[in-house]
Amino acid sequence: MQVKRQITFLPDNITVNVDDNTNLFRAVKAAGVYVLSSCGGKGNCGKCKVIIKEGDVESGKSPSYLTSEEIGRGYVLACHSHIESDVVVEIPPESRMQAKHKIATGAKTEEILQIMKAAGGCLDSRMMRIYLNITPPTIDDNISDYERLRRALDNAGLDAVHLHMNYQVLSKLAHVLRDGKWKVTVSCFDVGAVLEVLDIYPGEVIRQRYGAAIDIGTTTVVVYLVDMKNGHIIGTASTYNSQVKCGDDVITRIVYATERNGLTELQDLVLGNINTLLGDLAEKNGISPGMIEYIVVAGNTTMTHLFYGIDPQYIREEPYIPVATFFPLIRGKSVGFQLDPQALVYSMPSVASYVGGDITAGVLVSQIHKQEQVSLFIDVGTNGEIVLGNRDWLVTAACSAGPAFEGSGIKFGMRAMEGAIEEVEIDARTYEVNYRVIGDVKPIGICGSGMIDILAEMYLNGIIDQKGKIREEIGSKRVRRGENGLEYVLAWRIESAINKEIVITEVDLDNLIRAKAAIYAGFATLLSHMGMTFADVQKLYIAGGFGRYIDVERAITIGMLPDLALDKFQFLGNTSIIGAYYGLLCDRLRHEAEEIAKKMTYVELSVSRSFMDEYMSALFLPHTDLHAFPTVKKEFEARKKLA
Amino acid sequence: MQVKRQITFLPDNITVNVDDNTNLFRAVKAAGVYVLSSCGGKGNCGKCKVIIKEGDVESGKSPSYLTSEEIGRGYVLACHSHIESDVVVEIPPESRMQAKHKIATGAKTEEILQIMKAAGGCLDSRMMRIYLNITPPTIDDNISDYERLRRALDNAGLDAVHLHMNYQVLSKLAHVLRDGKWKVTVSCFDVGAVLEVLDIYPGEVIRQRYGAAIDIGTTTVVVYLVDMKNGHIIGTASTYNSQVKCGDDVITRIVYATERNGLTELQDLVLGNINTLLGDLAEKNGISPGMIEYIVVAGNTTMTHLFYGIDPQYIREEPYIPVATFFPLIRGKSVGFQLDPQALVYSMPSVASYVGGDITAGVLVSQIHKQEQVSLFIDVGTNGEIVLGNRDWLVTAACSAGPAFEGSGIKFGMRAMEGAIEEVEIDARTYEVNYRVIGDVKPIGICGSGMIDILAEMYLNGIIDQKGKIREEIGSKRVRRGENGLEYVLAWRIESAINKEIVITEVDLDNLIRAKAAIYAGFATLLSHMGMTFADVQKLYIAGGFGRYIDVERAITIGMLPDLALDKFQFLGNTSIIGAYYGLLCDRLRHEAEEIAKKMTYVELSVSRSFMDEYMSALFLPHTDLHAFPTVKKEFEARKKLA
Repeated sequence: MQVKRQITFLPDNITVNVDDNTNLFRAVKAAGVYVLSSCGGKGNCGKCKVIIKEGDVESGKSPSYLTSEEIGRGYVLACHSHIESDVVVEIPPESRMQAKHKIATGAKTEEILQIMKAAGGCLDSRMMRIYLNITPPTIDDNISDYERLRRALDNAGLDAVHLHMNYQVLSKLAHVLRDGKWKVTVSCFDVGAVLEVLDIYPGEVIRQRYGAAIDIGTTTVVVYLVDMKNGHIIGTASTYNSQVKCGDDVITRIVYATERNGLTELQDLVLGNINTLLGDLAEKNGISPGMIEYIVVAGNTTMTHLFYGIDPQYIREEPYIPVATFFPLIRGKSVGFQLDPQALVYSMPSVASYVGGDITAGVLVSQIHKQEQVSLFIDVGTNGEIVLGNRDWLVTAACSAGPAFEGSGIKFGMRAMEGAIEEVEIDARTYEVNYRVIGDVKPIGICGSGMIDILAEMYLNGIIDQKGKIREEIGSKRVRRGENGLEYVLAWRIESAINKEIVITEVDLDNLIRAKAAIYAGFATLLSHMGMTFADVQKLYIAGGFGRYIDVERAITIGMLPDLALDKFQFLGNTSIIGAYYGLLCDRLRHEAEEIAKKMTYVELSVSRSFMDEYMSALFLPHTDLHAFPTVKKEFEARKKLA
Repeated sequence: MQVKRQITFLPDNITVNVDDNTNLFRAVKAAGVYVLSSCGGKGNCGKCKVIIKEGDVESGKSPSYLTSEEIGRGYVLACHSHIESDVVVEIPPESRMQAKHKIATGAKTEEILQIMKAAGGCLDSRMMRIYLNITPPTIDDNISDYERLRRALDNAGLDAVHLHMNYQVLSKLAHVLRDGKWKVTVSCFDVGAVLEVLDIYPGEVIRQRYGAAIDIGTTTVVVYLVDMKNGHIIGTASTYNSQVKCGDDVITRIVYATERNGLTELQDLVLGNINTLLGDLAEKNGISPGMIEYIVVAGNTTMTHLFYGIDPQYIREEPYIPVATFFPLIRGKSVGFQLDPQALVYSMPSVASYVGGDITAGVLVSQIHKQEQVSLFIDVGTNGEIVLGNRDWLVTAACSAGPAFEGSGIKFGMRAMEGAIEEVEIDARTYEVNYRVIGDVKPIGICGSGMIDILAEMYLNGIIDQKGKIREEIGSKRVRRGENGLEYVLAWRIESAINKEIVITEVDLDNLIRAKAAIYAGFATLLSHMGMTFADVQKLYIAGGFGRYIDVERAITIGMLPDLALDKFQFLGNTSIIGAYYGLLCDRLRHEAEEIAKKMTYVELSVSRSFMDEYMSALFLPHTDLHAFPTVKKEFEARKKLA
């Protein structure tokens, strides 16, 4: 008989019973407790640190992820540990997902409808409700009920080549027409060549109608609840994508999906997120989720595959092939949504394995596909996708920057949530540090904007060289040799919330430089692909949750963004959700998105010689070629004088 | 507590327990025993005669349907009786459905494929299986799996505007493509603007593929099992439509459908018939019903509504509106067929409430829509539907002849099965009778061809006058006054299998004359509608199960068919099933059927002044206007001389 063990998780005091020798990371998931993990429990990110307060675990080869001090204090990696007795486990603050967080939900919601109209959009959703006053049949006009309805729809301006209704609707058609005395309300959906009659009601139905736009990010899920009648966003909500516990980035998720029930598990997690967000939003606004009749989602190609439960395995293997880029419409209920029984779900179309519907949505919002001038577009999320083009052509690439700026692979890296250092200044003479923490609390880690600041400040003040190597010779007490080599102390133990110094290591710096180099090399490669240079770029649009918090000048300083005039940069916010909103309400713009997806030429950077060259040149601060960054050069020299 | 009663049905010795006071007709249905009934248990056809051998029933107002002799022998009408004790009930031969019967299953099956090809058909079914050798993806040719499949289908000549596959197929697409090393077999279906991928298999699949053509008649159901690869009919089967126990004609069925669970019950009955026929045929031919992947049905508009479970209520009420004439495709499994899980079901399109897919199929087989000459077409089944036209125009009408020729409303009427008198001759001098019985057994009743013979012989020999009234004055012992007025004895008690004289009454004669008058008036009305006469008709095609057994000369004699040269008449057999077979195998012809259905103009005879006039004139033998029937006039005079 299997011996059972009881595990208690602190500080939430959640208890779960598992078999003896269960892996602690799996027990954490079984308990529904959240613990950070970038690798999804594979044992190679070192994020899932927990403290064993009572009882025994077998912790295998405890790796270099833990300091000897941490080991002394009872830290283990959950994924490396197996339960050997009843245990009490504490989840320390640095391993927790904080409740207060910043997720960009888009532009100001009251403005989005105006922005859409300015982009040529209008309220002509494919999801329609039409009131029809139908001429009753006579002996001389005795076409079938179905043909009569079709004729009335034609007369109302909906010329359907094919009219379709399922047998449930067809079965009640005769009665509804006569109960309503030939005045009926038809709920229907334009599927292209086919007009699908979803339901039919006697008389005029003036019930409210709702829809939802959803951005499924690798890290976050954002939802808009929309009044379909007037386009008003009546509520927004967001949460972290629960899939993060199975891995930080798309590659880890794909690997996870191919194992055991991984695919179903990942699908259930994100559907659960969306159901919860929609349910809460509906309740808060006093409506029933059963009144939500149309959903448009936008996500990267992997997220979209997982949403539909389609195996994304070959996205990851050369030559990187997705199963689909255009996804068939489905009924919400077929994937388990608790919406209107007839509710339909549409996905913004993808372009390729690493350029998804979120980017198609982004281009739609940026409107670069309608302009004469050449623009760049970047969505800085968990990946960095880039588009270059104008009304005549569009090229796109994914620069696989990786999730370093979201904290992955960075010793004290974390997402932009309470406790994250988000701004950093270093004194040019004393090397002392000033930082600002989200929520004005003691810090527990560093988020993306903080990392950019650190790189920029350390470089400008000569604490690191152009390659990101720490210059020990400057003789600051903040520079020291840690367990993983040289490191710089940002916050002393007494300042931090985690009873540890918060540092940035040379390994961290190296990871950040690779990430920024990949983005810059992506821009440069697309331009050279088209025989252009940065001088040809009239606008650079920055989209994405993280994008919103980037300080453009600092990002130029580290060579992540090109050294263009500041007025050429424009923030667009979360264009993935805004584009999904366009698609929800305006069929013309949704159609435009499909045209954009078909028009975009995908450039595979991972096999591009030119990209490798550009990347190698960009592995410096700001770049091998300082002439390409005149303003940085100037600032660097100014600081030098100051020091 | 409800008292339970046991009922035993003889001769099959089937026992059933029911509540006290249960209606005996419902008990019969509960026991699964067959008893004739034209009205479906409403109490107004007098067909469901049974004999109470033991026990008591309360038999209400025993009506004029039973002779005093029958009452003396324990006869009751099942639908008028309620159980008051345990009872033993005998179903007499005249109330039983005989095992041996004649159902026309079409032309000789080995010829049908040739006939189809002669009509311009070929093996290009919408249900396809295609082997594809697909170019594998590379970095430079990295479209999605879905787009790659679509491209391969395009290259194979299937230009799909929209390609659709459900998520089950989409989910396995990536694996099947790679497992098959990019050689796959695709099972797909052409839905018009959309090509639906039903399934995909690795490698080349050479499994057999089957389809079925089905004729759903009001009285009979006929099935062809077809090899989709070469069009061979590998088996045919037929049965009586089990719905007959709920009523003989479509009107009674419609009424039945609107009561309680009537609609579901009727649907289940016919689906049960088809499942049984297909299952038996499959077993007999050593194949699995799971290999049947496509079904095409043809039936009248009411039968088609019932097949799909659509309420036919308004077909019956002026202005006689069907819910639909074109029916959406469905999956076989959605209505409970045990076929290939992806199997699809298509219905031949109807024209109006009383001109269905069986007639569309009939015109398709007759090819009158392609000829320059003007032809008439009639399907003589439970109803009589008529089409007039040529390649430029088609008009159609239903002449509501009613099921008299199938035995309904005729005292000893029955369908063409064992024990039915099918041919009759009467001696001009002695008035003695010669008859032939199906199966060469003692007679139990008279079927349609027998009735036509009787009418013709009685008229030609002066036993009845032009109005169908029996001339008592001829002084034959066969002419006598029965319980319902004058009658003519066809078979004496000693000759019959039912220990009763088999007679034809004046009421019967009247019903038959009405039926034949309706058919003739239908022809005449359509012709006058087009400003034509019978002289303009180059061909008269006769289709339908009953049609096959008509003696054209006799039918002309009674004025049911016009007096045209005999070489203008052509029998087509069961064109409903043959047309369904065309639709199953040949998309070009199926499409032609849809064009025929759209092109046909329906003339509603029930409100036509002209029809009423023609009908009144046709209520004579052969017609008021004897000049319209020169050959009959000649024969009549020849007989007169003989007598």
